Amino acid sequence: MTTNRGLAAIRRPADLRGLGADELASLAAEIRGFLISAVSRTGGHLGPNLGVVELTIALHRVFDSPRDTLIWDTGHQAYVHKLLTGRQDGWDRLKKTGGLSGYPSRAESEHDHVESSHASSSLSWADGVARAHAVCGRDRHVVAVIGDGALTGGMAWEALNNIAAGGGRPDTAAGDSGADRNLVIVVNDNGRSYSPTIGGLADRLASLRLQPGYERVLEAGKRTVRGTPVVGPALYAGLHAFKAGVKDALSPQELFSDLGLKYFGPVDGHDIGQVESALRRAKRFGGPVIVHAVTRKGNGYPPAENDEAEQMHSPSAFDPETGEPTGSPSTGWTDVFSAEIVELGTRRSDVVAITAAMLGPTGLAPFAAAHPDRTIDVGIAEQHALATAAGLSRAGMHPVVALYSTFLNRGFDQLLMDVGLHRERVTLMLDRSGVTGSDGPSHNGMWDLSLLGIVPGMRVAAPRDAATLREEFREAVAVADGPTALRYPKGSVIESVPALRRLDGPAGVDVLHEPGGDATGRADVLMVCVGAFGTLGVAAAKRLADQGVDVTVVDPRWVLPVPQELLALAADHQLVVTVSDCGTHGGFGSALSDALRAADIDVRQRDLALPQEYLVHGSRDDVLARAGLTEQDVARKVTEWAAASVPALPALQDGERAR
Amino acid sequence: MTTNRGLAAIRRPADLRGLGADELASLAAEIRGFLISAVSRTGGHLGPNLGVVELTIALHRVFDSPRDTLIWDTGHQAYVHKLLTGRQDGWDRLKKTGGLSGYPSRAESEHDHVESSHASSSLSWADGVARAHAVCGRDRHVVAVIGDGALTGGMAWEALNNIAAGGGRPDTAAGDSGADRNLVIVVNDNGRSYSPTIGGLADRLASLRLQPGYERVLEAGKRTVRGTPVVGPALYAGLHAFKAGVKDALSPQELFSDLGLKYFGPVDGHDIGQVESALRRAKRFGGPVIVHAVTRKGNGYPPAENDEAEQMHSPSAFDPETGEPTGSPSTGWTDVFSAEIVELGTRRSDVVAITAAMLGPTGLAPFAAAHPDRTIDVGIAEQHALATAAGLSRAGMHPVVALYSTFLNRGFDQLLMDVGLHRERVTLMLDRSGVTGSDGPSHNGMWDLSLLGIVPGMRVAAPRDAATLREEFREAVAVADGPTALRYPKGSVIESVPALRRLDGPAGVDVLHEPGGDATGRADVLMVCVGAFGTLGVAAAKRLADQGVDVTVVDPRWVLPVPQELLALAADHQLVVTVSDCGTHGGFGSALSDALRAADIDVRQRDLALPQEYLVHGSRDDVLARAGLTEQDVARKVTEWAAASVPALPALQDGERAR
Repeated sequence: MTTNRGLAAIRRPADLRGLGADELASLAAEIRGFLISAVSRTGGHLGPNLGVVELTIALHRVFDSPRDTLIWDTGHQAYVHKLLTGRQDGWDRLKKTGGLSGYPSRAESEHDHVESSHASSSLSWADGVARAHAVCGRDRHVVAVIGDGALTGGMAWEALNNIAAGGGRPDTAAGDSGADRNLVIVVNDNGRSYSPTIGGLADRLASLRLQPGYERVLEAGKRTVRGTPVVGPALYAGLHAFKAGVKDALSPQELFSDLGLKYFGPVDGHDIGQVESALRRAKRFGGPVIVHAVTRKGNGYPPAENDEAEQMHSPSAFDPETGEPTGSPSTGWTDVFSAEIVELGTRRSDVVAITAAMLGPTGLAPFAAAHPDRTIDVGIAEQHALATAAGLSRAGMHPVVALYSTFLNRGFDQLLMDVGLHRERVTLMLDRSGVTGSDGPSHNGMWDLSLLGIVPGMRVAAPRDAATLREEFREAVAVADGPTALRYPKGSVIESVPALRRLDGPAGVDVLHEPGGDATGRADVLMVCVGAFGTLGVAAAKRLADQGVDVTVVDPRWVLPVPQELLALAADHQLVVTVSDCGTHGGFGSALSDALRAADIDVRQRDLALPQEYLVHGSRDDVLARAGLTEQDVARKVTEWAAASVPALPALQDGERAR
Repeated sequence: MTTNRGLAAIRRPADLRGLGADELASLAAEIRGFLISAVSRTGGHLGPNLGVVELTIALHRVFDSPRDTLIWDTGHQAYVHKLLTGRQDGWDRLKKTGGLSGYPSRAESEHDHVESSHASSSLSWADGVARAHAVCGRDRHVVAVIGDGALTGGMAWEALNNIAAGGGRPDTAAGDSGADRNLVIVVNDNGRSYSPTIGGLADRLASLRLQPGYERVLEAGKRTVRGTPVVGPALYAGLHAFKAGVKDALSPQELFSDLGLKYFGPVDGHDIGQVESALRRAKRFGGPVIVHAVTRKGNGYPPAENDEAEQMHSPSAFDPETGEPTGSPSTGWTDVFSAEIVELGTRRSDVVAITAAMLGPTGLAPFAAAHPDRTIDVGIAEQHALATAAGLSRAGMHPVVALYSTFLNRGFDQLLMDVGLHRERVTLMLDRSGVTGSDGPSHNGMWDLSLLGIVPGMRVAAPRDAATLREEFREAVAVADGPTALRYPKGSVIESVPALRRLDGPAGVDVLHEPGGDATGRADVLMVCVGAFGTLGVAAAKRLADQGVDVTVVDPRWVLPVPQELLALAADHQLVVTVSDCGTHGGFGSALSDALRAADIDVRQRDLALPQEYLVHGSRDDVLARAGLTEQDVARKVTEWAAASVPALPALQDGERAR
């Protein structure tokens, strides 16, 4: 399959320029084989990268990176780009500590620009870079590659609106029409986000694919592209569009030209020649222009092409022959929620489930199968997810919004100003909270407690095991007068971390460990462990007991607002230590300290949490260890703090506290 | 002008139904007079409400509120709605404590639903309510009234995409095409946000207005509507569209039908009969439908119609004859920034100013006049504003993004994942931070420190007067390796609150008051006052000195990250009291406490800040007084805390701190 001028000979993009059509086809096949082999060993984003092999080759032949700027929306589709820009080594440590990042990385290469994994941002970045070039009179091109899924995000529309208007300079007399900006938007249209892309836009793109002109494109494509023709997602979306019943037969140009953008396409994204031709026209155009490339996610690898279960978007290690995972399956937090909401939906007809293009990953697929009329996939549109949840609540429903924790950031204003301000009954299920690790800083869900605590009236639970996930979810959906949230981590879950007893009080703080193992011991140190850190806390406490340090370990269960019963317990100890995997600013330790000060309780407190930093990628265990969140490190720190401890401040008089 | 069946006879919407055309015209004129008279005395949102008089009457004649749900995007356009739903009294206390809210209010009326002042949310709310009705089989209509300005916000596009697709239910076999949802979207197109609406969408709307069919609409409109025809904004935007040079002559339907939405219009929004006719067709349609109504902001009141300076969007009290303000002008924080950035822009060619449809209100208009090629108005699109700022920085510029503090919420993810993660040099100017008061809970800028502190590497200053605003702005734009922000309040500014001395250290903490007035006094209490609270702190300290309580008052200037020199100073006092107008969760007191714990410094701390609650509207002074942020209350609380104070914990050994 490989030739003398194969992948190993491509050390930089310029090395692609002299290749002929056959060599390019051979190179594409070699890259596909490389990706399948490499990702089968380490895990990683496979489907998206198999879909952009030819597109990436064409981009690097037509444009001159890094002089021209290539920006990848949702950077997990940048593996081919990495291979073509000097990064063919180190794939055995992909996404591991010290190894290749799974996303663009400025530290790795001058060809990389945007490191975040959050979707829909590339057009805004590209507009900014292109505008700076225009203001400074630089003749450089900027290319953003954005999927059809990412176009459903509101910020992509905000950017398109600005790009179309030349950025909306108020002084029209100056004539800034945007035509001076060399900005090429490549729409990588595979009809999918994780899930099939939804919405009016998806329908419209689907109808473009079904144009006679596009069918001819496909026929031509078949002559040069190996593998089966692109029919899966197009057929799906086409049927969807016909069902909607409100489509007109418009020419492809109109979708974007309504916004004033020049449009080329659609072209077959697996035909290097076709893509190059469109890109060269776009490059010559001299103003903002859209190139619509139709691709197939997972192209050339049957297990990834026929991936109804969404297993090949970002698989763990797998057998490259079959696509079957090589690791042993375990029950995760997501699975527990997934089963629980199906049962809830059957019991309560007011429950509606909402996801933002993550039906499978958040565990909602079984609910969608059981209750299709009460399942809403809004696209990559967290703002709408939360505000429409508020509307559903206003009209009597109880929405459950399942998101990855880090993507809650995108809907913060809607949580605060739509859900919270109106005290709507909305339950957030925040999966992948805390450290996720391998996908790098923008995937970690370490910001959620800092955000959720801002929202007045917000109640947040952090389950420590499968049993408390079920219990706290039931408690959350029983709340009818305001929003609730559960946060739980990535990975496998223990069925039960038993409590010795539960404190009286509305939150129901669970005592997990006490000195002497009975209810009468009095400890010097109170260790408050958020969620899954209960297990670590108990282990550390046993280790500390051996060293003569008496520790009480509690799981607050409901962590925001800080339970009142926790304050009284804190006042009864010499030292309070919090353990959590949120950031320090506005995190759990911060919230507990705030509550203690507000209650006029002065007790020494220390916090073990994530530093308020962007955490470099690595396995979850590696990242937690770097942050000192291991049993050993927790025990060591508590020992040090306890040794330095001094008598607590005398308790204030009741009269003082009442003020 | 009034008749027996005038405004006073309209106690509820049903009272409108029997009126004839002449009576309706008379009623509209009476409402206009009422609004001009009422708002001239209290201040309030005038222009937007004068633009929707006929539209609101028509809506309440065609739909049956509260059985049908009317949702007003950016609720400041709901005054007419209030008058027609039983709220004709109490306008003398508009936006004052205990008086009428300037926005919809569920506490006021069952006809009100969405209280937030943040734009672009109405479609998501309406989609949620309509979907709940559909799921429950209720035959009710939902109407969202959204301005063309609000359509530039990404969340409006997310909602349109969902509404067009019937919400994107993944199970297409179930046939949820959205056609079962009775959802009417009224686009109130006046060509303006605060500023003229910008972007490709605005150009497109403008081209619709210029269609021959629309001209006929206007001609017909002139026969029934008093006042001059609608030409100002349409002419502006039309010229802008022609300049763009990429417009095709499309029929009006295509803009929205590309997304699969039925479209009626455009209609003259000041012709009640025309609007009613379109609304009745929309109501009968039985699925999501758009009604495009062209209105004129300020219609019928010349000072508000010809409002190039944007003074009549939300004026203070004014002379109704002339539109001239009756209060005396004073220099505000905005004015100081406004002058400073013009000067900076002249000195530095890399400075770019960005605003989100708030060129006038944020003080950027003079910069735009002086440096039009380096001014970007992105529309109501904070997400794009921040991410495109990151792109500009990546390509060598230094963007200054001027926002109202509360609207930063909308761009939080972009601040964290685009600006912060990539350490881009972006300076945020957050006007109206802290309590704004009269516009209610969603306008207060009390969340900014909680959000900004989450962003690793973010540096935040809070100027206390005009001199430090200039100084700290200069310091901020000198930072080249990461983001910076200044937060400053609404209202007038003092030129200088002098410092006694400045502590050595990178932040440059200013000492504003010391016991005995010299540099050698040692105080029991350290009062740390954020920004403009320096003035209050000095006054309270003098009051406390009379009571024998020694207080040091400092202004940290740079409040995040907490200055190291402040920690050492805190360790030297018995009690630390913070004074700020941010919320408690992740606010300044919280950040200082976090920093002290992290440095192993145990000192008693208390905080005077805003409660983490939605603060009911009232004057800024009223709201601050309710929160206890007055000179008297601060002095009283410090006295109480100081009396209860106990010896600080012994300082730890150096060895302890070093760990």
